[in-house]
Amino acid sequence: MSNLKLEIEYDGTDYCGWQAQRSVRFKSIQEVIEKALQKILREKVKLIASGRTDAGVHALGQVANFKTSARIKPDKLMRGLNALLPDDIRVCRVQEVGPDFHSRFQARSKVYRYTILNRKAPSAFSRNTVYFYPYPLDIKLMQKEARALVGRHNFKSFQTSGSKERASVRTIKRLKISKEGERIIFEIEADGFLYNMVRNIVGTLIETGRGRLSKGSLKKILSALDRRLAGPTAAAKGLCLLKVKY
Amino acid sequence: MSNLKLEIEYDGTDYCGWQAQRSVRFKSIQEVIEKALQKILREKVKLIASGRTDAGVHALGQVANFKTSARIKPDKLMRGLNALLPDDIRVCRVQEVGPDFHSRFQARSKVYRYTILNRKAPSAFSRNTVYFYPYPLDIKLMQKEARALVGRHNFKSFQTSGSKERASVRTIKRLKISKEGERIIFEIEADGFLYNMVRNIVGTLIETGRGRLSKGSLKKILSALDRRLAGPTAAAKGLCLLKVKY
Repeated sequence: MSNLKLEIEYDGTDYCGWQAQRSVRFKSIQEVIEKALQKILREKVKLIASGRTDAGVHALGQVANFKTSARIKPDKLMRGLNALLPDDIRVCRVQEVGPDFHSRFQARSKVYRYTILNRKAPSAFSRNTVYFYPYPLDIKLMQKEARALVGRHNFKSFQTSGSKERASVRTIKRLKISKEGERIIFEIEADGFLYNMVRNIVGTLIETGRGRLSKGSLKKILSALDRRLAGPTAAAKGLCLLKVKY
Repeated sequence: MSNLKLEIEYDGTDYCGWQAQRSVRFKSIQEVIEKALQKILREKVKLIASGRTDAGVHALGQVANFKTSARIKPDKLMRGLNALLPDDIRVCRVQEVGPDFHSRFQARSKVYRYTILNRKAPSAFSRNTVYFYPYPLDIKLMQKEARALVGRHNFKSFQTSGSKERASVRTIKRLKISKEGERIIFEIEADGFLYNMVRNIVGTLIETGRGRLSKGSLKKILSALDRRLAGPTAAAKGLCLLKVKY
């Protein structure tokens, strides 16, 4: 048995997310890749990802692994997969790894990027990969307020209610907000993320930048452990899983 | 009569180009915008662009103007257009300009960008906006060779044969080749471009970078005034009209 690690890029626009959902019109990214793998390897495989991504969320560096008894060279498998996969899913790297490697359990941290297009008109070019927000945002204030989130905290206020996750303590290692031309880019690295955590943080920081929350609000929201105090969940299409670190 | 100038962004993937083509399955960008204008202004208008772009070519800063007797505020027109247009065409700015402004005749220069994705695997994210080229390219050599093209020259060798254009002298003001991560980006500014000129230059420079042309070849190809000596036309989807200067 060999254990193969895939690095995957996808445009999540036309999928129901990484994992299959019941009664949903769209396919999942996982099932599309598993089918392609099955076709090449002539056996069923189970693909384990670093974590799920939701419908409409993208990835530049999703990581997944699977075990197989089939013998195939990593580069050949990559080319075969990219020939079979639809063009909005691409495998950028295939590596043989040790038998104990597990994409989810061994992830040390993940890096997400959230992109806001902050100008008067929406974009044709990046219509599926940015969240269009036409109102002025005070970035300096957002940067200042965001500092309260960095470090080890209970992020219950930023977890979409109804999710089953019990332990909601996570460590945000880095939260950078920068302006590149007309874009505002959030880069967040943490040892793990709760359900909708990045999108809830971004949604709350947009409220901050818009002047709808007073100074110090983020700290208060964080310590209240109450999802109802935080801002709305920012749109899925602005979110992208950049990298998983092991 | 007022004269209105539009700045337009589009993803050219699903269009036959700026201008309508006979017996083509896809619509043109021009006709789609003209229809939206007609719906808003309740009169037929003729949209004059800075120049055509081919099928599959994109724009971040196409400029077009039209005259109308309808009275409408520029910002209101912009919002109205973006509400009617498909999401792969966006009007980013509307301005009232003097009666003599003409998008094509008065353009002083245009800036095009061509993007190559130079890595082993294609991209899911930017599958429609970059040209995927998996083989190593000698960028320094490409930069060196490209210098021969800067300035005022007869670019007949880089004009797709069969085009009607007689005068093929143009001035390339700037030709910058840079590497940004896995991308190789060409930025070319000229007072005007011949048919397929950017794509033919890029196609030839790829041959250079691949080591298929000896040193000094670009200069020789340029002075030969013979299209057959230059490289193939690079794929449309890597090309984007960045800016028109007036």
